[in-house]
Amino acid sequence: MTAEDRGPEDGEQVRIVEVGPRDGLQNEDRTLPVQERVELVERAVAAGVSRIEAASFVNPERVPQMAGAEEIMASLSEPARAASIGLVLNRKGLDRALESGVGEVNVAVPATDGFSVRNQGTTVEAMLETLADIDGALAGTGVPLSVTVSTAFGCPFDGEVPTERVVEVVRRIADTSAVEIALADTIGVGVPRQVTELLRRSEEVAGGRTLRCHFHNTRNTGYANALAAVDAGVRVLDSSLGGFGGCPFAPAATGNIGTEDLLYMLHRSGLRTGVSLSGAVGVAEWMGERLGKTPPAYLGRAGAFPS
Amino acid sequence: MTAEDRGPEDGEQVRIVEVGPRDGLQNEDRTLPVQERVELVERAVAAGVSRIEAASFVNPERVPQMAGAEEIMASLSEPARAASIGLVLNRKGLDRALESGVGEVNVAVPATDGFSVRNQGTTVEAMLETLADIDGALAGTGVPLSVTVSTAFGCPFDGEVPTERVVEVVRRIADTSAVEIALADTIGVGVPRQVTELLRRSEEVAGGRTLRCHFHNTRNTGYANALAAVDAGVRVLDSSLGGFGGCPFAPAATGNIGTEDLLYMLHRSGLRTGVSLSGAVGVAEWMGERLGKTPPAYLGRAGAFPS
Repeated sequence: MTAEDRGPEDGEQVRIVEVGPRDGLQNEDRTLPVQERVELVERAVAAGVSRIEAASFVNPERVPQMAGAEEIMASLSEPARAASIGLVLNRKGLDRALESGVGEVNVAVPATDGFSVRNQGTTVEAMLETLADIDGALAGTGVPLSVTVSTAFGCPFDGEVPTERVVEVVRRIADTSAVEIALADTIGVGVPRQVTELLRRSEEVAGGRTLRCHFHNTRNTGYANALAAVDAGVRVLDSSLGGFGGCPFAPAATGNIGTEDLLYMLHRSGLRTGVSLSGAVGVAEWMGERLGKTPPAYLGRAGAFPS
Repeated sequence: MTAEDRGPEDGEQVRIVEVGPRDGLQNEDRTLPVQERVELVERAVAAGVSRIEAASFVNPERVPQMAGAEEIMASLSEPARAASIGLVLNRKGLDRALESGVGEVNVAVPATDGFSVRNQGTTVEAMLETLADIDGALAGTGVPLSVTVSTAFGCPFDGEVPTERVVEVVRRIADTSAVEIALADTIGVGVPRQVTELLRRSEEVAGGRTLRCHFHNTRNTGYANALAAVDAGVRVLDSSLGGFGGCPFAPAATGNIGTEDLLYMLHRSGLRTGVSLSGAVGVAEWMGERLGKTPPAYLGRAGAFPS
């Protein structure tokens, strides 16, 4: 493994947020046991991942793939716990996450009522109130808050999402102490021009918060969208090892952009991630064995270049 | 089918060169009979494709999937023949192509000797001499010549390809009467930054010829590369219906970028191709049935948006 394996030494930094253990696994048919999910987080951190969605503090009856969040957190090594992000959708989830010692809390606020009501049982307006409540409860804990705007590029129920709508949600999130706001293409319908425009408009109302992007490759626009985000100045991107994570609204399609494929594109473009490409390919292969399927991402099949 | 299905009416035009019948099929295990390849070309033209690699005038003993070029050309309708491009690698192939009535001749000139010797049995220098010979023979025929620089982004034998090397080949091609010069990422290793740089440097020596790009999605950079090319001003892109076309140098990997996925990205970015997205999805599905496999491209599985 060479230094180049993590991107060129003198390259500008793009940070990867690894979402495989949460967004990747929660849409897979096979549920991985807690100990395998712990091992996944540890392997990712060993490959250089510094922020990782390690657990989801949602109702396990609604998302059985994510059951056992407390057990996962209790089993993590200290570096992995420090890197861990816990998904939280309500006050109860927040209490569980804090009790478990997560390194960071992430709250998802949909841009559309259609998705919000069906995915998390609440309107966008009510979710923003919940966010304010969570934000208040986090005060003094030292645990940073990041907020992800889901369905920002299109909604499986409401269809096209007006830019104004997304911008308004970002503006409301900027009223909280969130250190980072993410724009998420939850169902993989976005295109680069939309990325550029949404980022430009979001930046105007984000009050200087870091902007992060979250793309799915459902229609093969995910990596082009990532490129558009980087070109627009974004320096934090979500990705999923192996590209695992289907889309529940397009059952035959793939989901998140794959970490190893994103690393390949970024590293060879002169950007540094600090995450090992060969390490990521190895973890993705390991995941594939656990899930009983070939990773949707391509690097493992095609090989790096030069090989 | 709405007008939007071919891109917005007032959108700037990006032209698609459909390479499915040649670059797509030549790497598939199953050889489609001549009549099915004729039907593929006709279906693509009916979907709005105005330029299409209909036949390959190489030695059929070397590429059995491409046998029957004359029979294909003889069976095409007049509009399909006018849209047809024939691949030619030597003077004998040119004579066959002209005799068959192709609408355009395309010659592939590798940027690297490693690929050139193994793929077409000649050095780059000798291939440039063959090109000059073909160019001379085309004079007065009225059949336009385009030239594709293969392995411009990396070579499976020689590894990294210096930009200077590609630029020199482009400069030599600009000495011919070629109306268009394409940069091809034959093995799908290129990244957007490379696209931007190669196009900038090629433009300086291309003598005003149209620049076209040809990308493979072998490592999931193909659509991002297409975006980078469009951002750099390129208005002609190769793609393959269904994304068919493996890579002989990475047997488990996918090949060309898929026409329908490219249309989705371009149309929703405000660009017009004149090719019907729903039509392309239909032709790709038909190809999948003939080849006995699911198209690697995603639009057919995920569905367009809004649906």
